Formats: sequence, structure tokens, C-alpha cells
Amino acid sequence: VPTSVVFGLDSFGDTANDAAGNRVSDAQTIRDIVDQARLAEELGLYGFSLGEHHREDFAVSAPDTLLAGIATATSKIKLGTAVTILSTDDPVRVYERFATLQALSNGRAQITVGRGSYLESFKLFGFAEAESGRLFEERVDLLFRLLEQNPVTWRGQTRSGLNLQELWPKLDTPIDFRYAVGGSPESALKAGKLGAQLSLSVISGDPTRFTDYVQSYRDALAAAGKAPQPVSVHGPGFIGTTDDEAIESFWPMYDASYGKVSRERGRILPPQYATAKDHFVDEVRNGALYVGSAATVAAKVARTIQALVIDRFDFKYNSGPMSHEASTTNITAFATDVVPRVRKLLSASA
Amino acid sequence: VPTSVVFGLDSFGDTANDAAGNRVSDAQTIRDIVDQARLAEELGLYGFSLGEHHREDFAVSAPDTLLAGIATATSKIKLGTAVTILSTDDPVRVYERFATLQALSNGRAQITVGRGSYLESFKLFGFAEAESGRLFEERVDLLFRLLEQNPVTWRGQTRSGLNLQELWPKLDTPIDFRYAVGGSPESALKAGKLGAQLSLSVISGDPTRFTDYVQSYRDALAAAGKAPQPVSVHGPGFIGTTDDEAIESFWPMYDASYGKVSRERGRILPPQYATAKDHFVDEVRNGALYVGSAATVAAKVARTIQALVIDRFDFKYNSGPMSHEASTTNITAFATDVVPRVRKLLSASA
Repeated sequence: VPTSVVFGLDSFGDTANDAAGNRVSDAQTIRDIVDQARLAEELGLYGFSLGEHHREDFAVSAPDTLLAGIATATSKIKLGTAVTILSTDDPVRVYERFATLQALSNGRAQITVGRGSYLESFKLFGFAEAESGRLFEERVDLLFRLLEQNPVTWRGQTRSGLNLQELWPKLDTPIDFRYAVGGSPESALKAGKLGAQLSLSVISGDPTRFTDYVQSYRDALAAAGKAPQPVSVHGPGFIGTTDDEAIESFWPMYDASYGKVSRERGRILPPQYATAKDHFVDEVRNGALYVGSAATVAAKVARTIQALVIDRFDFKYNSGPMSHEASTTNITAFATDVVPRVRKLLSASA
Repeated sequence: VPTSVVFGLDSFGDTANDAAGNRVSDAQTIRDIVDQARLAEELGLYGFSLGEHHREDFAVSAPDTLLAGIATATSKIKLGTAVTILSTDDPVRVYERFATLQALSNGRAQITVGRGSYLESFKLFGFAEAESGRLFEERVDLLFRLLEQNPVTWRGQTRSGLNLQELWPKLDTPIDFRYAVGGSPESALKAGKLGAQLSLSVISGDPTRFTDYVQSYRDALAAAGKAPQPVSVHGPGFIGTTDDEAIESFWPMYDASYGKVSRERGRILPPQYATAKDHFVDEVRNGALYVGSAATVAAKVARTIQALVIDRFDFKYNSGPMSHEASTTNITAFATDVVPRVRKLLSASA
């Protein structure tokens, strides 16, 4: 395990409730996210990344615009996406926005491209879901080439061609390019072939089952003659004073976000669980959720880091209609209590 | 003339030279623009607007991303575009980015839509220049409806349709919608019919010739049953210690920006001028350029405001490879010397 493992935060910008349980405006949620990112920097965290969604549960549809606002309010923390849905965005516009963010942040921008786990953007921007694979593949290749800063000549099927095209603003320093994967083997190979960083999102099941998966990405990097690149895991969670308190506090948030989406998608509860909450508790105890006391969460984070030999862990501190106060408490507990414990566990076993 | 006339700044984000004449990086130009906007706020100016260009002369291709960075570094000044090239952008993305900017800025966002005076964006984003008129008309209508915050059902020929579509983030407060015109009569009528604010860009010839034009916009507003809306004029300029000093200092900047574009477009020097500089000097003395001592520029600004009965004057303080230092000197002279003189002239004649 690298001794330099770093810790970041992810948020999808879920529309928050206030402490009294009333929905706060999207605009206030956005301003609160700026404060949450400032807090993350003050507490020494490495990165802050925002998701892109186009539905009422989320206030963030333009993550890089919001990151630009955070850029001038911070000075050290890396600013990225989790993820930029590249299948339905134009790599030229994405380049222009991120190059601007890179300038504003003095070199702290990170693009994480992915397909996203929602489909709203296809209809909204006039793309066919059936074309999803081709859209993503073509656009990843084009964006990657644009980021190399040379004039680009490109022909594809999902966008008009480019002929010795340059884009402005030019970059002073390269932008970190992260490739988000959910576990499909082709994605790991593709990320490795490109020489991209890997961001593995695990939202159900035991994260340590991806050990071979991460190795196959590293093998693909080596086979393509690329330098080793950082690997990170994205994991949602909530830290409480005890395991039980954390489970009871987080359950309604989880049910209102991940649970709601499962119901929308008609997912059937696996037969071994009597209730959706039983399933949730099993994900906490044995699966992908980092929920519990600081000691419990730290042990789980350390186990993930060690099993997958990763360089970075991104804690999704906010899920569902969590209040700004609860989010800042969760951020503080992660940065000041969990992270030191994880570092101690890692060095004890080193 | 309204007693409440306000003063703003415009920049296209021309890639700057440093004081020694060396080109500074695009990234540094972007960071300098943040400082220029901060200065504009400190000096009490009303608004700061950025153009959108996709060519090597300009560091700003994503103006709203840069404005988002300025939003959290300022607290009072209005933040807008000059202009958003809506013909080649997607109104849905424009809404999402500006709604995010509106949140970050606590309600200070202003969209100015226009066709722009450059054509690079058509090829870059895969649109036909021949479709320019239809693209702009359809996209203005769609964006205007999206800003009204109700579910939008829309069918057009230049974008996929929307069916009872809502967008997020929702707005706490409406975004000012400005319609940029260069003098075409249909544009004034269209802006009036929509109930949009008018932003008149005059870059050559005597600005006061647009008196009837502005009145026709106001008539169109009234005919459509819309409330009166602010009218602004955008004018480029440079303030020196004397008229001659200003002319000599600004001429190379002008020649490297407006002059270069004229040559690219194959414009012929009108026969009454022996040289391009003679033409420039005539624009300074009798035309669209606000160049000279503070007293001279103030007299010209006041004359424009009074002749057109406008509510706002936007000074384009930066043209060509002007250094950051020269830009801040120009901003300071405008805010602290020209604006007070204009106010005095306006109240003397009131």
C-alpha cells in the first residue's frame, strides 16, 4: 500500500433538507456545497468531487461551474467530478470548461469521465440510450486527445469532425484524467490502455472483491507502456457516535436516495432479506457502505485500501436530503477522526 | 435620462501581454480577469461581463465558468456575458450553468444572448452558418421559456424536443435576460416582443445614430404589453492623461484586435482615409471609440447616454494584448475619474 494514500470527498449535490426537515432551495444547497468544500480544505483533505445529475433529487447539474466557484474560494484542494457524464456532453465544451477551471484553481482540476448511473441526460440532450457505448467510447478518446494540447484531427460517428483544431484556453499544467468504472472488465482495460487514472465506484457488495479487477487495470497500463497511475475507490458512508446510532441516522437518508432509485428501477429485494432495511444493514456490515462509529468506518476503509492496494479513498459524505449541518458533521468526523485512524491502521500493518 | 444610470465593464478576455510585451499564458490571463472583476467591484461598478470566443486571440471560451470563479470572489457586482453565443450552444446547458452561477452569486447572474461577431463556433460545434438565423431564434425562445421555471414542452428544428421538462437547479430569483443587438431592426423588435433587456453594441460609427433604434425597441416592448426594461450600450475605449497620449497608447492594441479582424475579413479601408490609423482616429473623434482623457471620454459617454436615453453604459476596458497593469489602470480611470464626471454632466443637464 502506498504510504502516500490520500483522502477525498464526493458529493452528488443531493437537494438538502434543513435541520427541521424542510427542503432548502437548490440555490442554498449549492452555496452550502461551497462551504463544505472550504471545510474539506481546512481539514486537510486532498480532493473534492461533484457528480452530475439532471433530476429533481439533485441541485448539481453543472458540476464544473460549481467547482469554478469553489476554485477561487480555496487554494489547495483538488477539484473534480464524480462523474462528468461524457456520453451526453461535448468533449470540446468539456475541455473549454475544465481548462478554465484549471486556470482558476491554479492547476487543481481533475476530470473524472463516466457513463453515470442515471439515464436522464440522454433524452434531455437528444441522444439515444442505445448509442450509449459508442458515445462514451468516442468522446473519451476525443477528450483525451484534446487534453494533450496538440492540434486535433478527428472523425467519428457521434459528433462533427475536427480538422487540426486547437482549443483555448491552453493549459499551463496537464489536467488529471480519471476514468470512472463500476466493475465492467472492458472499462478497466480501456482505462489502462489510455493511461488514465482509475476511479472505482462500489455502491453495493464487498469492495474487496475487486482486487483482481484493479490488478487487471494495472496490467493493462503496463501492457500499453503507460506509467503507473493512481487508483481510487468511491464509497458512500456516514459516521456516528456508535454503529447503531450511525445506522439509524443514515437509514432514512439512504432510503430516500439509493432506496428511491432502486424502487424507481423496479429492483427486487434479494430473497434473503425480509426488509429493505435488512438489506441496508447487511451492506453496512458486509458490503459497500462505510457506516458506523469512526473506529468501524476506519477499519473498513483501511481494509479496502489494503485489499485493493489503492492510492486514494473518496468518501461520499452526503446522500439524500441530509442537512448542511449533518453534512459538515460527517465531513469533520471523516477528516479528523476516521482519516487519522486509517493512517494508524495502515502504518501498523506496514 | 434615468437618474439611476449604472456603469459596467466588458472584456472579451483577449490574451494579454505582460508589461514587457511577452504573451502571458491563457491561464494567467484568466486569473488576472478575476482580479480585474474584484477591482471593478471595489471601485463600485455595477456589472462585469465576459465575451465568448473560440480562437487564439482570446483566453475566454467558457465565460460562465470564469464568472462562477468571480462569483465567490465578489459579493455585489452583477456578473454577465457579452455575449453568450446562443446560436451554437444548447439552451438546456446554458440554463443549468447560469442557474448554478445565479446560486453561487446570490442572484447576480445576467445572461446576454447574441449571435456573436465571429463564426468559429459554428464549425467547432458542428452547426451550419447558413442556419444561423433559425438556430438563434429557436434557442432564444427555448432559453427564455426555460428561465420561466415552468415545465417546458418544446418542439423545434435545431434541437431535440422537450416534453414537460423541468431543469435543476431551480432559481431562487429570476436571471436578468439581456438581448444583444448590433443594429439590425428585427433584433430590436424581437427583444421588445420577448420583454428582454436590450444591450446595444456599437463598435463603429456615431453611437447617437441609434436613437430611433432604441425607441423602436421600447415601442415593441410596449406593444407586447411588457414592462419597460433597461437599455445598455457597450463601447470600447481607453483613458489616458491626454487625448493624444490615449490615442497613441491604444492604437497598437486596437490594431492588434479590431484591426486584425478587419484584415482577416478582407475589409477595405474606406476611401476617405489614407491609413488605418486615420480611420481609427476618426472613430475616436467622431465614432464609436471612447478614447482620450477622462474629460473627453466622460463627455462622449454622457452624450451617448443622453442621446439614446439609456440606463447603463458598459465600458470595454480591454482590447488586444493589453497588459494586466494597463487593464487595471484603465478600469481605475473609468471608475474613479470618468464615471464621476459623467454623473456630473448628466445632473448638470438634468
